[in-house]
Amino acid sequence: MSRKQMHLATILSNGLGLPYAWLEPQVDPADYANIHALVRYAKAAERGKLDFIFLGDFLAQSQRSEAHAPGQTLEPTVVATAIALATDRIGIVNTVSTTFEKPYNIARVLKTLDVVSGGRMGWNAITTSAPHAAANFGRAIDDRETRYAQADEVIQIVQALWGSWQEDAWIADKNARRFTDLSKIAPVNLRGTYASSRGPLEIPPSKQGQPVMAHAGASPHSHALAGRYADILISEVFTIDEARHQRESLRRAATAAGRNPDDIKFFAGVIPTIAATPAEALARRGRLVEPDIIQQVHYLGRLIGLPLGPDDLDTPLSAAQLSAARANPGDPRSFRALEVAREGWTVREVLHHAVIDFHPAPIGPPEVVADHMQEWFEAGAADGFWVTPDIYADGMDAFVDGVVPLLQQRGQFRTEYEGETLRDNLGIDHQYGLRQPHSKP
Amino acid sequence: MSRKQMHLATILSNGLGLPYAWLEPQVDPADYANIHALVRYAKAAERGKLDFIFLGDFLAQSQRSEAHAPGQTLEPTVVATAIALATDRIGIVNTVSTTFEKPYNIARVLKTLDVVSGGRMGWNAITTSAPHAAANFGRAIDDRETRYAQADEVIQIVQALWGSWQEDAWIADKNARRFTDLSKIAPVNLRGTYASSRGPLEIPPSKQGQPVMAHAGASPHSHALAGRYADILISEVFTIDEARHQRESLRRAATAAGRNPDDIKFFAGVIPTIAATPAEALARRGRLVEPDIIQQVHYLGRLIGLPLGPDDLDTPLSAAQLSAARANPGDPRSFRALEVAREGWTVREVLHHAVIDFHPAPIGPPEVVADHMQEWFEAGAADGFWVTPDIYADGMDAFVDGVVPLLQQRGQFRTEYEGETLRDNLGIDHQYGLRQPHSKP
Repeated sequence: MSRKQMHLATILSNGLGLPYAWLEPQVDPADYANIHALVRYAKAAERGKLDFIFLGDFLAQSQRSEAHAPGQTLEPTVVATAIALATDRIGIVNTVSTTFEKPYNIARVLKTLDVVSGGRMGWNAITTSAPHAAANFGRAIDDRETRYAQADEVIQIVQALWGSWQEDAWIADKNARRFTDLSKIAPVNLRGTYASSRGPLEIPPSKQGQPVMAHAGASPHSHALAGRYADILISEVFTIDEARHQRESLRRAATAAGRNPDDIKFFAGVIPTIAATPAEALARRGRLVEPDIIQQVHYLGRLIGLPLGPDDLDTPLSAAQLSAARANPGDPRSFRALEVAREGWTVREVLHHAVIDFHPAPIGPPEVVADHMQEWFEAGAADGFWVTPDIYADGMDAFVDGVVPLLQQRGQFRTEYEGETLRDNLGIDHQYGLRQPHSKP
Repeated sequence: MSRKQMHLATILSNGLGLPYAWLEPQVDPADYANIHALVRYAKAAERGKLDFIFLGDFLAQSQRSEAHAPGQTLEPTVVATAIALATDRIGIVNTVSTTFEKPYNIARVLKTLDVVSGGRMGWNAITTSAPHAAANFGRAIDDRETRYAQADEVIQIVQALWGSWQEDAWIADKNARRFTDLSKIAPVNLRGTYASSRGPLEIPPSKQGQPVMAHAGASPHSHALAGRYADILISEVFTIDEARHQRESLRRAATAAGRNPDDIKFFAGVIPTIAATPAEALARRGRLVEPDIIQQVHYLGRLIGLPLGPDDLDTPLSAAQLSAARANPGDPRSFRALEVAREGWTVREVLHHAVIDFHPAPIGPPEVVADHMQEWFEAGAADGFWVTPDIYADGMDAFVDGVVPLLQQRGQFRTEYEGETLRDNLGIDHQYGLRQPHSKP
């Protein structure tokens, strides 16, 4: 058996980067609505042999400040199509809400994309809890129990619709005048409490059969759902211990659902900042933190249990402060914050390390990022990484051309795609239609 | 004022053609699920300077016989994206049902496509009455009154969402650290009986502001809706008289809605068959009719009031039969059927003229098709034509390279696009957001 290697994914959001990335001189703010910029980043990721591009989604206004760009402009189906047509091997995982989208539409769009991409699609099936998103659909938000029960039904119906055109239904025999075997294109007639569909869907199998399944989340509800259906789980974890704990919880959920836990790949997020020297990298990330520095210093105080304010920014924490500081176990970022503070940086510099961000932030030359990933991977904290460039304009290339070759040299990451489909590259078994329960005890 | 010219559109369905087109030797049945084939036809249409590509939609199983290909495989958003990225000037009009799709999704997908295409999108807003489509969404079909009341609300909400990011909201001023003027990105908060949405949509204006509006239908409900909102109406008409009558009904509806009737373009359908000689063209179309010849001969009998059956196929109608025949005023195709029968063709040959089809069928060398269109256009029967190639594999090129140059030589059709956007090329006024009622008395 060949040595196990990590998987790598990246997310394209608004094509700009972290909230203040658009202010940087190398960024053209017009990329906000420029699909060609997103395609360029996708092609870079494919050059780096990444497993997949992830497209998030948010069904409501995402811009909260005039100084931020909105999180996303362009509708993900359109973006996925553009990427599918401009690339050959990289996968594309689209987020579609089970709360507000209908299974018939989800099934049709994603299977179309799977056919068009040559078997490279995945579906990140998530529930939506944002009241503003519900309001866009003229609804209120249901409780979590209901949302996850609905998600379960929607996923089953979507997968059944994917299988409703059987794999050998397409004959295309001119002599026999039979385009299809209609007995193999049958309604699914699924009626649930929250969703129903008749089917069938008139779409033949893709090169990988049907899209792979992803889920993003960390709650017990999330892990239970992912344990039943997901091939990929995207997590938000800040320490190796927390990641291992979540990965084990997920694997137990898969086992409980009668599946082989190795069939679910656990992805840990990372938002690297890469530059030639540690100082340049810290300055680059610092510029992206600086506009929020006042809010962040107060937040940092709460994280480590000290009353911090703007006056504390330009000095390191004193010995007395460091001795009084306590990491807040409710926010795993506090451990990293305290670790950086103990290195003697000023409070401003601690914050420039992006200790308060959505994912861990290795900052420095490519080796620093590769080391972070290798350490986590070898510690069993993740099967792969979900990488968000800090500033897409040059951050995607910096990762692909700087970090990926190091991981390849270390034997941690592929040097060529294993196959043509997303299933091939992730090592995920064939599935067509709804998986039979407990088929893999 | 320059001489008025016709507009031209074409539809891409399954990329094959009429139901039996896939049996022809020049057709690769695999084109059924091949987006590159659709893109090739779109590029041909752009070479012909056509106004737009029309993408239909049907939210249920469309294949009724193993000998037919289904009407459509690939989801239209995906197809529209592929065409938008492969072309520069031609418009793209996508069908999206107001009955089963939510206004927030419709608005988001179509405005994204409008931005990505550089202002070349249109929305064919139609209601859906197929019970199998309703069943795919776990619903039953509402009555027509309800469906059209819902359509009216959905269109208003979609257009309001399109306008919810005001045209000058995007500032992108790095020095002022203002990405947008958030006061100009406001919720619409529309609540109707059948649809509601809060908004806003975080998508800036496209090069034409927002998509143009199309509608397909002939009922009084359809004309009333189109009169209020449509820039384009796609009709199904078989004679010049019927077309004039429908066009006038539409224009009255526009006037009643306080609009200038010249602002709605009335498109008449046509399914030409083009070959070097009349006999070759008739043989080509005949092959597409022949598998249904038995059903068609019975149907022809009902159309012209004669008891016809298979035994009548290979002789012309006798003088006695022709004298007894009566066109059925309930089906305008009967007039054309009788006209062809009187030319002395055998009954089989009458049917090979495609007298029983979805649209008029000029059959012959390119001149025959150009003559049909010119005659209708000059008679005030249409502002444009909606052309369905009989067999896409070579029928699209035959139209673009054979018929279009004749229309251009005759001064009936443009030789170059007027502008960059669909609005420019159709001569449709700027609109952003919901049109103010009675703004053009």
